[in-house]
Amino acid sequence: MDKKIYRFEDGNAKQKHLLGGKGAGLAAMTQMGLPVPPGFTITTRVCREYYEKGRELPPDVWDTVLSEIKVLEDKLNKVFGSKDNPLLLSVRSGAPLSMPGMMDTILNLGLNDNTVEGLAKLTANDRFAWDSYRRFLQSFGKVVLDVPGDLFEEAITHQKALLGIKDDSSLASSDLKELVKKFKKIINENSKIPFPEDSYLQLKYCIKAVFESWNGQRAIEYRRIYNIPETLGTAVNIMVMVFGNMGMDSATGVAFTRDPSTGEKKFFGEFLPNAQGEDVVAGIRTPHNLELLARDMPQVYSELLKIAQILENTNRDMQDIEFTIEKGKLFMLQTRVGKRTPIAAIKIAVDMVNEKIITKDEAVLRVTCEEIEKVLHPSIDPRSKVQVIAKGLPASPGAAVGEVVFDADKAVELVKEGHKIILVRPETTPDDVHGIYASQGVLTSRGGMTSHAAVVTRGMGKPCIVGCEEMKIDLYKRVFTVGDISVYEGDIITIEGGEGKVILGEAPLVMPELGEDFKKLLQYADEFRRLRVHANADTPEDAVKAREFGAQGIGLARTEHMFLGPDRVPIVQEMIMAPNNEERNKALLKLLKVQREDFIGILKAMDSLPVTIRLLDPPLHEFLPAVEDLSEEIRHLKAQNPGEEEIKAKEILLKKAIDLKEFNPMLGWRGCRLGIVLPEIYEMQVRAIFEAAAYLVEEGNNPIVEVMHPLVGIEKEMDFLSELTHKIARETMETEGVNLNYKVGTMIEIPRAALIADKLAEKAEFFSFGTNDLTQMTFGFSRDDAERKFIPYYLEHNILENNPFEVLDFEGVGKLMELAVKLGKNVRSNMKIGICGEHGGNPKSVEFCHRIGLDYVSCSPFRVPIARFAAAQAFLKEKTQEVSSSV
Amino acid sequence: MDKKIYRFEDGNAKQKHLLGGKGAGLAAMTQMGLPVPPGFTITTRVCREYYEKGRELPPDVWDTVLSEIKVLEDKLNKVFGSKDNPLLLSVRSGAPLSMPGMMDTILNLGLNDNTVEGLAKLTANDRFAWDSYRRFLQSFGKVVLDVPGDLFEEAITHQKALLGIKDDSSLASSDLKELVKKFKKIINENSKIPFPEDSYLQLKYCIKAVFESWNGQRAIEYRRIYNIPETLGTAVNIMVMVFGNMGMDSATGVAFTRDPSTGEKKFFGEFLPNAQGEDVVAGIRTPHNLELLARDMPQVYSELLKIAQILENTNRDMQDIEFTIEKGKLFMLQTRVGKRTPIAAIKIAVDMVNEKIITKDEAVLRVTCEEIEKVLHPSIDPRSKVQVIAKGLPASPGAAVGEVVFDADKAVELVKEGHKIILVRPETTPDDVHGIYASQGVLTSRGGMTSHAAVVTRGMGKPCIVGCEEMKIDLYKRVFTVGDISVYEGDIITIEGGEGKVILGEAPLVMPELGEDFKKLLQYADEFRRLRVHANADTPEDAVKAREFGAQGIGLARTEHMFLGPDRVPIVQEMIMAPNNEERNKALLKLLKVQREDFIGILKAMDSLPVTIRLLDPPLHEFLPAVEDLSEEIRHLKAQNPGEEEIKAKEILLKKAIDLKEFNPMLGWRGCRLGIVLPEIYEMQVRAIFEAAAYLVEEGNNPIVEVMHPLVGIEKEMDFLSELTHKIARETMETEGVNLNYKVGTMIEIPRAALIADKLAEKAEFFSFGTNDLTQMTFGFSRDDAERKFIPYYLEHNILENNPFEVLDFEGVGKLMELAVKLGKNVRSNMKIGICGEHGGNPKSVEFCHRIGLDYVSCSPFRVPIARFAAAQAFLKEKTQEVSSSV
Repeated sequence: MDKKIYRFEDGNAKQKHLLGGKGAGLAAMTQMGLPVPPGFTITTRVCREYYEKGRELPPDVWDTVLSEIKVLEDKLNKVFGSKDNPLLLSVRSGAPLSMPGMMDTILNLGLNDNTVEGLAKLTANDRFAWDSYRRFLQSFGKVVLDVPGDLFEEAITHQKALLGIKDDSSLASSDLKELVKKFKKIINENSKIPFPEDSYLQLKYCIKAVFESWNGQRAIEYRRIYNIPETLGTAVNIMVMVFGNMGMDSATGVAFTRDPSTGEKKFFGEFLPNAQGEDVVAGIRTPHNLELLARDMPQVYSELLKIAQILENTNRDMQDIEFTIEKGKLFMLQTRVGKRTPIAAIKIAVDMVNEKIITKDEAVLRVTCEEIEKVLHPSIDPRSKVQVIAKGLPASPGAAVGEVVFDADKAVELVKEGHKIILVRPETTPDDVHGIYASQGVLTSRGGMTSHAAVVTRGMGKPCIVGCEEMKIDLYKRVFTVGDISVYEGDIITIEGGEGKVILGEAPLVMPELGEDFKKLLQYADEFRRLRVHANADTPEDAVKAREFGAQGIGLARTEHMFLGPDRVPIVQEMIMAPNNEERNKALLKLLKVQREDFIGILKAMDSLPVTIRLLDPPLHEFLPAVEDLSEEIRHLKAQNPGEEEIKAKEILLKKAIDLKEFNPMLGWRGCRLGIVLPEIYEMQVRAIFEAAAYLVEEGNNPIVEVMHPLVGIEKEMDFLSELTHKIARETMETEGVNLNYKVGTMIEIPRAALIADKLAEKAEFFSFGTNDLTQMTFGFSRDDAERKFIPYYLEHNILENNPFEVLDFEGVGKLMELAVKLGKNVRSNMKIGICGEHGGNPKSVEFCHRIGLDYVSCSPFRVPIARFAAAQAFLKEKTQEVSSSV
Repeated sequence: MDKKIYRFEDGNAKQKHLLGGKGAGLAAMTQMGLPVPPGFTITTRVCREYYEKGRELPPDVWDTVLSEIKVLEDKLNKVFGSKDNPLLLSVRSGAPLSMPGMMDTILNLGLNDNTVEGLAKLTANDRFAWDSYRRFLQSFGKVVLDVPGDLFEEAITHQKALLGIKDDSSLASSDLKELVKKFKKIINENSKIPFPEDSYLQLKYCIKAVFESWNGQRAIEYRRIYNIPETLGTAVNIMVMVFGNMGMDSATGVAFTRDPSTGEKKFFGEFLPNAQGEDVVAGIRTPHNLELLARDMPQVYSELLKIAQILENTNRDMQDIEFTIEKGKLFMLQTRVGKRTPIAAIKIAVDMVNEKIITKDEAVLRVTCEEIEKVLHPSIDPRSKVQVIAKGLPASPGAAVGEVVFDADKAVELVKEGHKIILVRPETTPDDVHGIYASQGVLTSRGGMTSHAAVVTRGMGKPCIVGCEEMKIDLYKRVFTVGDISVYEGDIITIEGGEGKVILGEAPLVMPELGEDFKKLLQYADEFRRLRVHANADTPEDAVKAREFGAQGIGLARTEHMFLGPDRVPIVQEMIMAPNNEERNKALLKLLKVQREDFIGILKAMDSLPVTIRLLDPPLHEFLPAVEDLSEEIRHLKAQNPGEEEIKAKEILLKKAIDLKEFNPMLGWRGCRLGIVLPEIYEMQVRAIFEAAAYLVEEGNNPIVEVMHPLVGIEKEMDFLSELTHKIARETMETEGVNLNYKVGTMIEIPRAALIADKLAEKAEFFSFGTNDLTQMTFGFSRDDAERKFIPYYLEHNILENNPFEVLDFEGVGKLMELAVKLGKNVRSNMKIGICGEHGGNPKSVEFCHRIGLDYVSCSPFRVPIARFAAAQAFLKEKTQEVSSSV
C-alpha cells in the first residue's frame, strides 16, 4: 500500500508531486541536517482520496496522524492538548504547484482555554500565551470556520479605541484575554459550528480545510486558466510550532538568496523581532533589513547565511526562505524557488551560468517568454494605485503617458515643442500616420484588433487601445467623456495597451532596461535554436530596427503601406480612377518610381539578408474614401451650392467607390486576384523590386529578394504569377546586365492553398504562412467582427481556450499548416517555409512552428527577441523530450 | 510498324480512336457488305506524326496514299487525274469525337481544266461536269486555301443578276464555265498559292488542310472546354465520289432511324434529287420528306430502310445516316449515333429497353444529366428569333414569359385577374415573397447568385435573373431602360434564367413534358443508385413537391425562412430589440408557437422520412432594415418634422442596426455563434421542433427529426449544442410522455469543422456538408463579390476550369470533405453523412459525393430527379470502372 503520510526525515526534494512543494522542501532540508522543526506531511494522494470518499478524511489516515502526533510528543517531550505541557502545531497547505486561493498557514494550533494557561506557565510569559491564543482564534475562525475576517479586526479596533491606544503591541495580556472572549463569541455567532476546544478536533478541521481549499473558487479558476489537472491534489504539512514571538531574542523573517527585484547576487531579506509570521506579511510593523540581524545576532545571521548558500547551491536556483528564531535558536520553516521580476530572472540566469551553477541551456529554459516580453515594454508600476476610467481592446502592449490630443497635426506640433502626447481619435486613417509616429501611444473609440491604428502601432511597438466604445469623443469641443468624467485636450492620461486600460493622470511607469544580461541571454538562445527569425518591416527605418533586434531577414514587407503615404494616395487614386490603360499606366509609372526608392532603402538596410516583399494585398476600395463619407460630403457640398465641377468629380469618385464596395471585403477582390485581373499593377511592383535590386548590385551591394504573392489558392494563379515575375526578372537582368539573387513564392493564407500545396510547390520556391487570414478562413471568423461580437463570450465560457488570433490554433489551422509543409516539401525538398502572421511572435506558436519543421518565423521587430528566445526554448524542450523518451 | 492507312474493308467499328468516328463507321458498313463507295482512311496516328514532323506529311504516308489510289483506280477502272476517264474523290475529316471547327467535306476532288472535260464526256452531261467543277473550286478555295467564301457567293449573285435569273439551277453550263473562270481568278488573287491543277497536289493540300483544322481556333477552344486531349488527332477519309447530281434518278439525303425530336420509332429523313450533299445543308432548295422517296424509288427506299434497321441493330442506338443515290443505285456515305432532343433521348432509351435492344443500366447511362435537366424546365424554342436586350447573372434556370410588374402587391393582384407576370425589382426582400410566388419569374438589377431573389426562386424552381446592372429601374415612373429601350409596366418580356438573357416580347417556349418515359427512366435509375436523395425544403408545400419528385427525406429545412414571413419579421425584430431577457422571452414565445406550426406541417408532409431541420443561421441584422435605408428614412422624417416619438423609435432601431452591422457578415456573428451566445433562441427552436414531433406522434404519425446546427467549427460548440438539444428532447418526451425518433448533428461548412471532424463526431450523429459556405471559406471567396468581380475573368482566362459554386471543387473543398468523412466514420462508423449545399443537385458533384462514400445528397425539389439520375450514373460508372480495372 502506498504510504499516505511522510515524516520530514523520510521524504526528499524530488517528491513534489506527492508531498507538495512545501513538504518536499521541508523533507530536503531535514535530510540535509538543517534545523527544521519536526513534523510530517499528509500526501496529495490523501487529498484525492478525501474527495473520492465524499469529503471525508479516511480513517486510516487519521489513525496515522494520531500516531505521528505521538512521535512528535515523544520527540519534544510535550503533549498535544495537555493543560500543563502543551505541544502546539502549525498546519500549512502545500500543492505541487504554487497556487493562489489555497489555505493560509494556521499557527498555534492546539490552544484552548486550558492549554493557553499551560503555555503561559511553561514560557512564563502570560502576554505571549494570550497573544498566541488570540491569533489562533482569529486565523482559525477566518480560515477554517469561514467567519468574516473584518469582525475580528473590528473587535481589535474597538478594544484599542476603548483603551485609547494605537498599537496592537500596547495591548496588555488582560486586554488580550478580553479579546479572546470576544473572538469566541464572534465565532460562535457566525459559524455553523462552535469553536472546538478539543485540540484534536481543531487539527482534524484544519486538515479538512486545507483539502477543501483545493476546490475553492479561486483555486479552480486558476487551475482552469493554467490547465492544471484537478487530480493533482494538495498535501498538508503539520509541524511543531516554534515561536518567534517569545521575546527580543526571538524573531521571524523571510530571505532571498539574491535580490528578487534586480537579481543582484546579494543576500536579501527582512525580519521582525518578537513576532510571528503573519506580522511580517500584515505590514502593521515595518520589518527590519537583515543587516540589522547581522548586527544584533551575528551568530544566527551567519548560520542563516551559510544555510541560504547551501540551499541555493543544492537547488541550483535563487531561494526564498522562511525562518524563525526562537530564543536565539534558528529554525528553517520553508525554502522554495524565489519569485523574481523579469529583469532579475534574466540577471540570475546569466550570473548562474558565469558562476557555473547552471548551463546555458538551463539558463534559457529558466526565463519565460512572458518575462522576455515584459522586459521589452514599459509597464505601469504594479505598486501604484491608478484610476482606470475605461477599457478597450488591447491592440498593442506596453504603457504610455501623455497629454490627450485629438488630431495628428496638433500632435506633431506639440511634440516638436517637447510635449509627450497620446493621440485620441474615433479611428485612425493613413492621414494620421505622422501623428501616430509622434505620439507615445494611441487610443481610439472604434476599430478592432486589425484596424489601422492597431496594425500601425503594433508595427511601431507603441502602446495602443482600440474600440474603446464607452469613450465618447467630441472632436469639436475637443473633449472625451466616459460616464461623467470629461477629459479635455491637454489633460494627461496613461494607457496600458497590454490590457486595454485607460487611466486618468500619470501612472508611474517602469521602463525596460535592455542590459548586457539580456543580450547575453539572447546570445545563449541563438546557440540553440534551429528556426531563423525574420521581422515584418515595411520601411527602411523598421528594417534597421529589426536588424538591431537580431532579425535575420525581412519575412514580410507589405507594399500597401508604401501605397498609403499622404504623397502616394493621390497617385494610387489616379491609378484606380484611370478611364483607360494609358492613364492607368501613367499613374503606375509614377508609383514605379517611388516604390523603387522604397525597395532600394529596405534592401540596402538588409543587405545580404533575405527580404520577402509581398505584392499589393488590400482591395482597391481601401484607397478610396468610404462610401458613407463621400455621400455625406456630396450632400454638404450640394447644400453649399459650389461649382458643379467639384460635385461632379466627387460623384465620379463615389460611383467608383460604390462599384468597388463589397459585401465581405475579406473574401473579395484583393491580393493576387487584383494582380491577375489587373496585371499591370503587379508588373509595376515586380519591376520596381528588380530595378531596385539591380541598382544595388551595381552599387556593390548584395540584395537578396523574395517576391511573395498574396492570397494564392489556385494552381493556375501561381503559374501565372510565377511566370509574370520570372519574365520581368529576366528582362531586368538583361537590360541592366546584372545577375539577381531572387526567389518567387507565395503566402499560404487560404485554406485551399494548404490543401493543394503540392501543386503550388511546382512553381513556388518558398511558402509563408499568413496565419492571420488562414485563421480567419479556417474558423470562418472575420476578426474585426468576431473579436467584438462573440470571441470574448467564447473565451469566458470556455468554448475557446485561447483567442486563435493570439495563439495559433494547432488543432485546426495547425493541421492545415502541417499538411502544407508535408505536401510542399514532398514536391520541393529544399522548399523554404516560414510564417509571417502575427503568431510568428507568439511563443507557443513559435514552438509549434519549430515542431512542424518550418525554417523561419517572422514577426514585428519588437518581438524578434521574444521569437529568438521562444525558438531556442522550443529546440531545448524538444531535445529534453527526446532524451526522456529515449530513456 | 503500325499501319498508317486502312482500307475501309480492313477496319472495324471498334477502331474509332484510330480511324475516327466516320472512318470506323465506313469500315463497319463495308465489312457488313453494305454499299459503301471504296476508299481508305489515313489514321489519327498520322495526324500526330504530321505535327511531330513540323507540319509535313510523312513521305511513307504519301507513298501509301499513292498506292491506295492505284488500288481505287483498278477497282473503278478509272484514273485519278486522267483527262479521259477521271477518278474523282471526296475527302472528309474524321476525329474520334465529333468536334465543331473541323474541316468540311471536299467533294469532286480531282477536277481541273482537263478532267472536267473528261467528266463531261464520260457522263454525257456538260452542265453536271461544270457544276461539279464550280462546286469543287468554291469549297477548295474556301476550305483549303482560306479564300473568303463571300467572294464566291458575290460572284454567283453578280452572274445571276447579269443574266436576270434567280436560281442557281437556272445557270446554264456556259454560265458555269464563266463562273469557273471567275472563281479561279478569285482564288489566284486571294490565296498565297495558285489553284493547283494537278489532282495529286489537290489531294495533298486537302489532307494537310484536314490536319491543320485539328489545330484551328474553334477546335482548340472546344477541346479545352470539354477536356479533349490534343494528342487524339483526326483521321482523313478518302473515298471514291458517287454523284447524287447526275439527274433525277440521282439524289442525296440524310435519315434517322427514329425521330430525333420526339424519339418516336419511325424512319425519318430528307433528301434532294439531283443534288450534292451541300445542297441539303445550304437550305436553298427545300428537301423532300423520305416518304416521297418511297413513292418515287420504292426499291431504293426499301433497301435504305433495311440497311437503316441493320445499322441500328448492330450499333444498338438510333443512327444518323448519309446516303447518295447515283443513277438509281444506293450508296451509304456515313452512319453515326444520331443527335436527339432530351425528350427523344429519354424515349429512345426506354423504348430500346422495352425492345430488348439495351439493358436498363445502359438506358440510364445513355441519357445525360444535362438532358434530364433540360427536360425539367421550359426553354425558349431554339428555332425562334428573339431580341436579347440585356444580360444578368443566371440565378435560376428555365424560361418564363410575362408582363413586367414592379411591385409584389400589384403582381399578386394582376395574377388573381389571370395575368402572367415577371416581377422586376432592384432587389427582393422577404416582403416580396408573395409577389415572387405569384410571378412566372424574377428579374433584378442588383444582387448576386446568393441574393434573396436567387435563393428563393431556385427553391421554387422559377426562372430568375439577378444583378442585371445595365437595366436601370425607375420605380416611380414604373419603367426600366436598357440603353435607349424603355420597358413599361405591362409590357411583355421573356427571361431565360439558365443563361441570364432578358428578351423583349414573348418568345415561344417549349414546355417540359414529364411523361411516362421520364418516370420509367427514373425508376430504372433508382434500381441502381446507392446514394439516397433528399430535398431542401422550407415549407410544407415544398415538402409535398419534393416527395412528388421522389425525395427520400428533407436534407435541409432552413428555419430562417420561417422567420421571414411578413407576419414573423415584426416578432423577430421585437426579439432582437428586447431590452431585457423577459421581453426577449415574450417575443420568443410568440415565435415558438408559429414555428411549431411550421414544423408540424413539414414533418407531417414527410411522415416516416427523415427531416433535417437547420437552426437559425443568418446574422440578426438581416432581420432589421439596412443602416443606409434607416438613416435615409430618419433624415426624411426629420425634414417632415413629425412627432418626436416616431423618430426616436427609428433612431433606437438604427442604433441596433449599426451595432449589429459587420465588416464581413459571412464570417460574423451567425449560425451556432448566435445560438451559443443567445441560447434562448436555439432553445426556442429546438423546443418547437420536439413539441411538433410529439404532437404528431400523439396524432398517430411517425415524424423522424434531425436537428442540425449550422456553422460549427469548434469541438465545444458541438458539445454545448448537443447537450442543449438532448436536454430539451428529454424534457419534451417526459412532459408529453412520448418517445421521439431524433438525431443531433452538424453542418460541415467551416474548413475547421472538416479538420476536426473526429472530435465533432463524438457528439454529432450526422454530418451534412454545407458546400456553399465551405467553398467560400476554402477558397476565400465571398460568393456575392467574387462572382461579380473576378470569377468571370478567371473562367475566361482559364485560371479556374469551373465556377466552384456550381461544380464542387474536388481538389480543395473535396479534399476537406474526404478528410471529414474519414475522420467522422472512424469515430462513429454508422455516422450518416450527406451534402445540402447547392452542389447536391449538380451531377458532377453528385458523382464525387458517391465516390467519397456519402450516404445522401440533398438539393432543391426541382433537382431531385437530376440527383436521382446522377446518383445512378455515378454507381454505374464506378461499376464499369471496377469491371474494366479487374480485367
